[in-house]
Amino acid sequence: MPSPELTPGSRGYIIPIGGAEDKVSAKAILKRFAHLCGGTDAVIAVVPTASVDPETPDRYRRVFAEVGVRNVKVLDVQRREDATAATTALLDATGVFLTGGAQLRLSTLLGGTDVARLLRRMNALGVHVAGTSAGAAFLSEHMIAFGKEGGSPLAGQATLVPGLGLTNRVIVDQHFRQRDRMGRLLSSLAYNPFAIGLGLDEDTAAFIGPDNKLEVVGSGAITVVDAGGLEHSSMATVDEGKPVEMIGVRLHVLVEGSRFDLHARRAFPAPEPRPHG
Amino acid sequence: MPSPELTPGSRGYIIPIGGAEDKVSAKAILKRFAHLCGGTDAVIAVVPTASVDPETPDRYRRVFAEVGVRNVKVLDVQRREDATAATTALLDATGVFLTGGAQLRLSTLLGGTDVARLLRRMNALGVHVAGTSAGAAFLSEHMIAFGKEGGSPLAGQATLVPGLGLTNRVIVDQHFRQRDRMGRLLSSLAYNPFAIGLGLDEDTAAFIGPDNKLEVVGSGAITVVDAGGLEHSSMATVDEGKPVEMIGVRLHVLVEGSRFDLHARRAFPAPEPRPHG
Repeated sequence: MPSPELTPGSRGYIIPIGGAEDKVSAKAILKRFAHLCGGTDAVIAVVPTASVDPETPDRYRRVFAEVGVRNVKVLDVQRREDATAATTALLDATGVFLTGGAQLRLSTLLGGTDVARLLRRMNALGVHVAGTSAGAAFLSEHMIAFGKEGGSPLAGQATLVPGLGLTNRVIVDQHFRQRDRMGRLLSSLAYNPFAIGLGLDEDTAAFIGPDNKLEVVGSGAITVVDAGGLEHSSMATVDEGKPVEMIGVRLHVLVEGSRFDLHARRAFPAPEPRPHG
Repeated sequence: MPSPELTPGSRGYIIPIGGAEDKVSAKAILKRFAHLCGGTDAVIAVVPTASVDPETPDRYRRVFAEVGVRNVKVLDVQRREDATAATTALLDATGVFLTGGAQLRLSTLLGGTDVARLLRRMNALGVHVAGTSAGAAFLSEHMIAFGKEGGSPLAGQATLVPGLGLTNRVIVDQHFRQRDRMGRLLSSLAYNPFAIGLGLDEDTAAFIGPDNKLEVVGSGAITVVDAGGLEHSSMATVDEGKPVEMIGVRLHVLVEGSRFDLHARRAFPAPEPRPHG
């Protein structure tokens, strides 16, 4: 569960990113994140634990340097027993960035450690926490660990495990357009429809503010799946691997500049350019 | 547009099938179709025009024989000028079955011919018309001719062309779970949200009755996408290939035994078995 805020609204942003945010020349998402964290004064702690590629920390040092952040610390936990000592890298961070890789590395290596506790506490006190791909999946209380691809939901298709727990309002799926994940996001929500599903395309991020309103940044779309008004689901009775009936899902496809209020469950369109022709 | 019925409710069933209906041992869909058409007295006209495989007619003769239909006629139009002469194969049919293949072969070879006119007229008078895969896409007034795969909709992603026109209430997409087609179905509906999108998994059919209520038959799911209550779409202003914003889509995942009222836009769950455990 999220750590309590000192005063309502003091929480930092929670920023799940759909992956591939550094492969696009404009780097709009990372620029926005860097700006939020203080621009040239930002201190970003990079957590590359999801990745087994030893190049990952240096790659993000370069990427953050390109958007004007020179003060980058690396909090690299590769064994659980290293976690407590690693927390020093977090102490003066104004923002934390969790890289991609395998989300089960994040939950198995950081879950229950001082790093996880400190990340929740610092976010509650105003530090912004972003994660891309596996890092995005890990941010919330319920994380999709794995699940087969495909457009319609199957019983047992998605395996949910406890995540970092900065928020429990959303369940995140990433590489959404690119990897055909509507079915597993729907089946994740069918288990218990209280959360809101965020299907994040690559190079697309949800900037979730302290007021639980999110804004879309990036070149793709966010598919918001709201099963809160679900009239019926057959999840409790259907056999594993069989399609799950779901009646009354609400769905929004949001693009850069669109907003969604996670509390009121309402979407607001992006300001429109003039019509064609 | 649909041909007028003689009396309301006299129309035959319209039965789009998501493909692969003959590859599953139970053949529940074809049995149901054969039963509807008169069982052992059924006369089924098979239209293999979508397919370029010369084996297709014989394959369906065998498949229909396996579900008890021995009177199968083949209406094979491979050139537009053959269409008028081919209509004799339709005259005593109690059901018509359009095979898979390429849906643009159906629209380009049959569109505007006596075959298309007669199919509409006979359906209005009570003859049941089923189509699988390409044949399913062709049944309605607006047909998805082609479109890239992917979960979130892009402007111009789906190319809609005029289909056979038995109904204009639905836009059909097939192989839905198997080929990641949520995005192109959403983008088809964003052009004009009046129609209801039916995303048909393989081995899954919508039996659309004369009362415009459909029942799901088969082993997969039908994803019903109802954009009729759309609050906002950016389709008119967004550049081609860019994601389209859509706010307020309703979505239902329906399984065997579920029903959907295309007029009232309401879903009804399948009768449930007893809960597990």
